[in-house]
Amino acid sequence: MPVPSFPTLPALHAAYADGLAPETVIAETYRRMAEVDDPGLFLALVPEAQARAAARALGSFDPVTKPLWGVPFAVKDNIDVAGFATTAACPAFAYLPAATAPAIARLIAAGAILIGKNNLDQFATGLVGVRTPYAVPRNAFDPAMVPGGSSSGSAVSVAHSLVTFAIGTDTAGSGRVPAGLNNVVGLKPSLGSISTRGMVPACRTLDTMSVFAGTVGDADAVYRVMLGYDADDPFSRALPVPPRPGACPPGLRVGVPDGVSRHFGGDALSEAAFEASLTDLKTVMRGETVPIDLAPFKAVAELLYEGPWVAERYQAIRAFIEEQPEALHPTTRAIIASATTRSAADAFAGLYRLAELRRAAEQVWTRIDVLIVPTYPRPRTIADLTADPIGPNSELGTYTNFVNLLDLCALAVPGRFRGDGFPSGVTLIAPRGADGLIADLGARLHAAADLRLGVGTMPVSLETAGQAHVARAQGDEIEIAVVGAHMSGLPLNGELVGHGGRFLRAVRTSAEYRLHALPGGPPARPGLVRVAPGMGAPIETEVWALPTAGFGAFVAAVPMPLTIGTLRLSDGTTPKGFLAEAESLTAAQDITEHGGWRRYLEVRQAV
Amino acid sequence: MPVPSFPTLPALHAAYADGLAPETVIAETYRRMAEVDDPGLFLALVPEAQARAAARALGSFDPVTKPLWGVPFAVKDNIDVAGFATTAACPAFAYLPAATAPAIARLIAAGAILIGKNNLDQFATGLVGVRTPYAVPRNAFDPAMVPGGSSSGSAVSVAHSLVTFAIGTDTAGSGRVPAGLNNVVGLKPSLGSISTRGMVPACRTLDTMSVFAGTVGDADAVYRVMLGYDADDPFSRALPVPPRPGACPPGLRVGVPDGVSRHFGGDALSEAAFEASLTDLKTVMRGETVPIDLAPFKAVAELLYEGPWVAERYQAIRAFIEEQPEALHPTTRAIIASATTRSAADAFAGLYRLAELRRAAEQVWTRIDVLIVPTYPRPRTIADLTADPIGPNSELGTYTNFVNLLDLCALAVPGRFRGDGFPSGVTLIAPRGADGLIADLGARLHAAADLRLGVGTMPVSLETAGQAHVARAQGDEIEIAVVGAHMSGLPLNGELVGHGGRFLRAVRTSAEYRLHALPGGPPARPGLVRVAPGMGAPIETEVWALPTAGFGAFVAAVPMPLTIGTLRLSDGTTPKGFLAEAESLTAAQDITEHGGWRRYLEVRQAV
Repeated sequence: MPVPSFPTLPALHAAYADGLAPETVIAETYRRMAEVDDPGLFLALVPEAQARAAARALGSFDPVTKPLWGVPFAVKDNIDVAGFATTAACPAFAYLPAATAPAIARLIAAGAILIGKNNLDQFATGLVGVRTPYAVPRNAFDPAMVPGGSSSGSAVSVAHSLVTFAIGTDTAGSGRVPAGLNNVVGLKPSLGSISTRGMVPACRTLDTMSVFAGTVGDADAVYRVMLGYDADDPFSRALPVPPRPGACPPGLRVGVPDGVSRHFGGDALSEAAFEASLTDLKTVMRGETVPIDLAPFKAVAELLYEGPWVAERYQAIRAFIEEQPEALHPTTRAIIASATTRSAADAFAGLYRLAELRRAAEQVWTRIDVLIVPTYPRPRTIADLTADPIGPNSELGTYTNFVNLLDLCALAVPGRFRGDGFPSGVTLIAPRGADGLIADLGARLHAAADLRLGVGTMPVSLETAGQAHVARAQGDEIEIAVVGAHMSGLPLNGELVGHGGRFLRAVRTSAEYRLHALPGGPPARPGLVRVAPGMGAPIETEVWALPTAGFGAFVAAVPMPLTIGTLRLSDGTTPKGFLAEAESLTAAQDITEHGGWRRYLEVRQAV
Repeated sequence: MPVPSFPTLPALHAAYADGLAPETVIAETYRRMAEVDDPGLFLALVPEAQARAAARALGSFDPVTKPLWGVPFAVKDNIDVAGFATTAACPAFAYLPAATAPAIARLIAAGAILIGKNNLDQFATGLVGVRTPYAVPRNAFDPAMVPGGSSSGSAVSVAHSLVTFAIGTDTAGSGRVPAGLNNVVGLKPSLGSISTRGMVPACRTLDTMSVFAGTVGDADAVYRVMLGYDADDPFSRALPVPPRPGACPPGLRVGVPDGVSRHFGGDALSEAAFEASLTDLKTVMRGETVPIDLAPFKAVAELLYEGPWVAERYQAIRAFIEEQPEALHPTTRAIIASATTRSAADAFAGLYRLAELRRAAEQVWTRIDVLIVPTYPRPRTIADLTADPIGPNSELGTYTNFVNLLDLCALAVPGRFRGDGFPSGVTLIAPRGADGLIADLGARLHAAADLRLGVGTMPVSLETAGQAHVARAQGDEIEIAVVGAHMSGLPLNGELVGHGGRFLRAVRTSAEYRLHALPGGPPARPGLVRVAPGMGAPIETEVWALPTAGFGAFVAAVPMPLTIGTLRLSDGTTPKGFLAEAESLTAAQDITEHGGWRRYLEVRQAV
């Protein structure tokens, strides 16, 4: 039983189900690590014997109660794991944490096996991966290129299939840029959805942990294990929608940067790669693309540098930087120490400016559901950064810096490779809480790009990318079966859409219903009733998902004699759905013979 | 037709309906102003002829489209009104605004007639009312006492019945302390519910306009005219619940400061007044009082002084204070200039500390719905403030400073007078969006305290206090009629309460329904169906209000064969309500003769 060449969750679990021992996977991880031979990837390793012991200790294969059973992973070294010093890539700052960060503890409790702590741009300040006093991690595709940061070691470890996933952090793009530079997925969730306890802060108002993985499906599965409200984290939020992939809704509006908003630093190969991704997008989405002027987003991105947020980085390590400034990487020190020139009044001025700019950005989100951007304008070389440690770093953040300031979620997905064989990437962005929406679209987009996983040879398919879900309501949603004027394209369908509805599936009822055309209208409406066994027939329905509040408002507006009850459908589900009061049918016409409202309308029109 | 001695909205509108001319009311306002003869109240007056002309221009009495038709009011002079300089009580700062603040424009559009601009603590910095370069407004009850601030002129103008209401502002208590010191109501709404455009900022993250009025009903009516999302105000929020008074829900949990949390500065008269208000509270509420340790709130209050928020006041007038520091009131200057010692890192440190303290406060709100506190520990004299401009001011904010930092709404209501004939007051506090809840409780409490309005002789009754509403769903709520196990005291009633339900009214259906006892259970459940005319009877229901999302979740859990349709009730309302699928009744027992589920259960039990 061979270890999968890329240890995706489905591949690993299939192998485990077939009898592969997790200890074999762990051994292979260490073998690959030696083969890759990049001393910059890890700042600390779990001894192989210890990791093997953890694998053995898992007991029998149990992916139900332990969804990450036997899955190797790594953690960025600005996150606490008990037993390891947390360095944040600054040896003088290192401390031995009292406990493992709660979000990491959840992964271990779910059966994941820790391999080590990854290198990073010191204090997670940078998007390049070269701002470390340790060896610089090598880009997985071209050692002349920067690996990207700040979660450099995390992204490269995944690209080399050393681990199934790696946990990074993201404040301004650290969970996305290195993903795009190493052909892996980078999931930057909604702020506050994962506890940030046990993480060395960068900007506490903007920080989140992030997930690197080979596929969107894996990243999403890991995210689902990590997320959850933490009352002991002041920045944790109880988000209303537990993000899960759902069916890509019809009518999706995807914003695409307009001509003047695109910036590739003059790199035609990057530009062509982005165009190729847009072509792929059109093959996987149902809806329309909308040209978007990125000016409001770029104004926010500039604010990150001009504004007061660097003072959060200062406050995060205040005692340390005031006592031992010489212990910092020179570039990092120069950036963080600049905070001392800013006053409290400046800080509030920046927060006010952000509040104003958020309003402009909110307007964009009334026109689109998702925004797609390049993950970065162009890859940069190590030499570029040696010549100018700041400029290329800033450029890499062009499409990432604004995301956390605007409370958006994002998903960096590999795109088609550039003409020179180097990876490219796009990032899907959406408002807070829409993590599930972009996961679904991202999985489809990833699968469409004809790619391999990381530096390996395993092809990305819709299945490996994570999109093989039944269309059911998710999280805070409620399913409702509609049988008449609310179906797609019919007069009242807008009421569903207006209440946040999304189409799930078309399915008939069980054979125990009768359909009637009610008097009145427009619009003409049917009335469905359940009848005695043997007296009914299957009737066509559309099942939609509505958010709970939208469902409530929708039901409240249903007029007499229609009611909302429970329907039995032929696929075995029993969603809520439209019924009619039996008393109202005395003046109605029985149209059961047509099998559904659409067919009845067609026939009536043809008459 | 005399002008009402206190021009409450109901009194004015009754007089207008009887033929009183609004011009007569305006003339009386100016006559009373001359009689009161306090040169500190107004910094600018609308010329009487102009105000009379505005009254004449109203046309015929129309309180439906213009709910404030013919109602005189005043505006604090840190809010823009076109045609008047905005001074913020700092002559050198004065500017002529281009437009009237949108929230004030709404009042004028609703028929309110502006009388003038009120004096205040300079830049709304203070709770005393003496920090003004103009004449200090006299406390309406005792000129030796401070009027309270910063909205000093606003509160005193209402107390003297010069105006029906006055618009103030509130950042740390400016809309509450002067209300409590002058026997008027001070409504401090949820932050962001009223546009702050056209208001001189104090702390933009904490500022709101506020309403002073004689009664809670009037303050609430004015608030309802002002509130609304303003896309051009970065701090405006679309709050989910338009606040309106509703029936005081049963089972209300009111937090009362525990013994060690009470502070009256050693003033036994204030302490006795607060005790008297607590006694009144018990006569008007349905529920329980819960002793609360105010420590988490006091920690937040202290943060307001120790933390960075003074830098917001600095930023608000930065160019001015840097160019003309000598133009400020000495006390105001000393306070605001202290911001220059604080860094941007300090600012974020303060915001982090607040985020932590908010968590502790949130725990309290899981145990109570409303908190009642004294509006201030004890009244202070002008002489006290002359001796120490800072200390007594800080003390006055003991029970107000934490409210805006914690995103709470508050309502200062007059309490029983002290033994020495000076007013007292209590403040009801609740989480953001619960403005309607505290308005209802506040109106009842005000009416119970056996008071007169302001310095006048008009008694406060439940009617004048504003509590005479029919129990209907409000704002985001949906009404649902329950006929069985969900009724009060029956097994499933907890599902309604758990989804945020509140009891509205008990009412029977129209005489066109039949009730059945369904097979199955426990719990035993009835099935209601509408039948042909003449075949049914009136059936007992309870109508409850559920928030939209709670309604959605509730309906989603309704099991087959029950459905949610529309019921016709004997009071003419047509709320949503429980029905049963007719097919399910073949095995059910018709119990219509009992007239309702409760009576059926009693009879069945007795058998």
